[in-house]
Amino acid sequence: MTQLEQARQGAASPAMIQAAGTDGILVDNLMKAMAQGEAVLPANRRRAGSASTPVRWVGIGRGLSIKVNANIGTSTAQSEIERERDKVRAAVEAGADTLMDLSTAGNLDDIRRMVLSRSGLPVGTVPIYQTAARVVGRGGVVARMNAEEMWDVVAGQAEDGVDFMTIHAGLTQGALERLKKQGRLMDIVSRGGSFLAAWMVHQQKENPFYEGFDRLLDLARKHDVTLSLGDGLRPGCLADATDRAQIQELIVLGELADRARAAGVQVMIEGPGHVPLDQVQMNVQLAKTICRGAPLYVLGPLVTDAAAGWDHVAAAIGGAVAGMAGADFLCYVTPSEHLRLPDAADVRAGVIAARIAAHAADLARGNPQAWDRDRRMSTARRSRDWPGQIELALDSFTAASLHEAGGSSQDGVCAMCGPYCALKIVDECLHPQTPPERG
Amino acid sequence: MTQLEQARQGAASPAMIQAAGTDGILVDNLMKAMAQGEAVLPANRRRAGSASTPVRWVGIGRGLSIKVNANIGTSTAQSEIERERDKVRAAVEAGADTLMDLSTAGNLDDIRRMVLSRSGLPVGTVPIYQTAARVVGRGGVVARMNAEEMWDVVAGQAEDGVDFMTIHAGLTQGALERLKKQGRLMDIVSRGGSFLAAWMVHQQKENPFYEGFDRLLDLARKHDVTLSLGDGLRPGCLADATDRAQIQELIVLGELADRARAAGVQVMIEGPGHVPLDQVQMNVQLAKTICRGAPLYVLGPLVTDAAAGWDHVAAAIGGAVAGMAGADFLCYVTPSEHLRLPDAADVRAGVIAARIAAHAADLARGNPQAWDRDRRMSTARRSRDWPGQIELALDSFTAASLHEAGGSSQDGVCAMCGPYCALKIVDECLHPQTPPERG
Repeated sequence: MTQLEQARQGAASPAMIQAAGTDGILVDNLMKAMAQGEAVLPANRRRAGSASTPVRWVGIGRGLSIKVNANIGTSTAQSEIERERDKVRAAVEAGADTLMDLSTAGNLDDIRRMVLSRSGLPVGTVPIYQTAARVVGRGGVVARMNAEEMWDVVAGQAEDGVDFMTIHAGLTQGALERLKKQGRLMDIVSRGGSFLAAWMVHQQKENPFYEGFDRLLDLARKHDVTLSLGDGLRPGCLADATDRAQIQELIVLGELADRARAAGVQVMIEGPGHVPLDQVQMNVQLAKTICRGAPLYVLGPLVTDAAAGWDHVAAAIGGAVAGMAGADFLCYVTPSEHLRLPDAADVRAGVIAARIAAHAADLARGNPQAWDRDRRMSTARRSRDWPGQIELALDSFTAASLHEAGGSSQDGVCAMCGPYCALKIVDECLHPQTPPERG
Repeated sequence: MTQLEQARQGAASPAMIQAAGTDGILVDNLMKAMAQGEAVLPANRRRAGSASTPVRWVGIGRGLSIKVNANIGTSTAQSEIERERDKVRAAVEAGADTLMDLSTAGNLDDIRRMVLSRSGLPVGTVPIYQTAARVVGRGGVVARMNAEEMWDVVAGQAEDGVDFMTIHAGLTQGALERLKKQGRLMDIVSRGGSFLAAWMVHQQKENPFYEGFDRLLDLARKHDVTLSLGDGLRPGCLADATDRAQIQELIVLGELADRARAAGVQVMIEGPGHVPLDQVQMNVQLAKTICRGAPLYVLGPLVTDAAAGWDHVAAAIGGAVAGMAGADFLCYVTPSEHLRLPDAADVRAGVIAARIAAHAADLARGNPQAWDRDRRMSTARRSRDWPGQIELALDSFTAASLHEAGGSSQDGVCAMCGPYCALKIVDECLHPQTPPERG
């Protein structure tokens, strides 16, 4: 049985018990949301059943805190497995909830297995990348990928224990036609989407993952791989946001999500992309209605095209607003987005920025754990309890470094205001139980 | 005549012509917004009239792009004027629209005059800081400030050419009473607010800036200093947001804003602070209705208390949403907020993050200049025009550094995707005017 099928039967799995505990909710509530297809718990049967690699399972969806994914992976420019190991460590230390291995160069099997064995987190992939890398490795071009090889890769990665997979099954010939009719500034910016589009145009055939969706469901069900239905036509710039091509694909994703649930397969939906801030809420609501409340996994969204070098900040803005509107899962964006492959420092910055966005949205949604943290942080701040503030900071390491670099005096004020600390002055005048000091 | 009085007469000043040009709007529209008190153009008469120090004047308010302020200034921990010079340079290079000198240590007159002469930007201050520094410098305590000295400092700074001043004139005894009755986790976190509250509690008198508001208006009108009515009771944590004390002060600020306009004095309103994301829009709308559309100057707002070390990101989230809701002016927050005095690198990061927030909000508000930038950026991105992308990035320096560190191949793809560049693959399959390459 998949986690979804167990949830429908009211049989709490160890992973569910763990995930519910992490979020401080009753496992019954998690099961209800999962049974209705409004939450998922990505946990490949093989990984979930192995005692040797403890994984911090997380639930994603209704009633749960917003989770953060970090994308890592090689490119032809940097294909060393050691660098990926560093990125795994950086992502885990920074507090990522899940990892996706998006490698396209080096020994892809070795890298994926390293991520699965080292991370201790649910792991996702985009199998079409390995399919493309294989054909290019043989001296071919992406447009000539072999359809049967697409299935081999999905099956192989599922057997390795991959917990969730991005599959761009909604990118149909019909959606491509609408894209051409629409006219776009950026056409297709999804890598997986571009590979499939190139194949579809070259072969003049329908998307194999759409046509063979039942085959995909069989594979997913067998290994309990959570399907993350990718938005291959997501907008790549603000000017393309929320156009007919994007929404056409979303409609297909909604239909496929229904089929996945009917087959007992866990499914979530991937969302945009580049979206003007005033369209973020609407995009989230639309994806939720079209897909009957399926968990929504957004990439950013980036609220400007012009923040290159700082796209983690642009994504934090979009991610927070998306989360407030109901998005469940934020894919981080790093400072290197649009510019180069991220390094470990970029991974760290990306995870922290996305966690701030997720936390801000959790607060806006009234999450009790989030409010407890902020209340305790403010209590520590009020009493100038520096160890407490540093412990409660979303990034204790950076908070400690900055504070220590500034130094603080014996009466606990920091280097920003020194003796002009508002908190201290007000404490003395409004709560003068302590004798007023001369400062 | 003040800029406001000139606007009412339909007489465009050189500063107005410059500011309208920067924003790409008709000077008539700027004048209309100014005449109605819904836009300001902070330009001290002395500075505006001096040919020796060219200033990049900016309008703030209705119909204008959102502007960004950078706070600099010494504290007892770091009072060297050289460091402030570095921060001025960092803020200007990063694209700040205005600067506030919040110094509390060192030779305050020298530092302020350095900022006025070096920055080339409109400059603001919080005069009560210098008043407090004087009494502490004489060995006294802030609660024993001399009221007459408060006025001397305001007059002296106005004569120096300060373009806008934060005055916490709305922090009345009545508002303080409501604060005590309300009960707060963080009481008062505004430095100026805390100084005045300490004085008011100690002296058992009304706030001199409230009681003597007409005197303040005379000074402001004489020098054409724009009043930035400070929110001394702004919430210092999410738990205190939008409480009765905050809104009581806001009501008083609205009344004072009416009086300022009636006296021909330009006025803007300062807003929160720490605010949960779901309350940001409401806070902006409330300030706008209560204060009859006066330009709103927000500090952040920070959408979580727990982002110490990354408060520039928390502020960018709040600032973008506030801007979309109608805020006109974003005060940056740096990574060092709550931890130590910012250094030049912090100033740079704070300005960039706030500019991203302002730009995202400008886009959401349909600002044509903002949309033009993003369209051109995306066009450059699509054609893999790297010099174009770097030029159009909000922070060209960082974009260039990251891209160069990654390297790019001869066919223009970057190190992230390499030969698997979606844009290149799709260009070749959807627009095959160029012969397909083998990649």
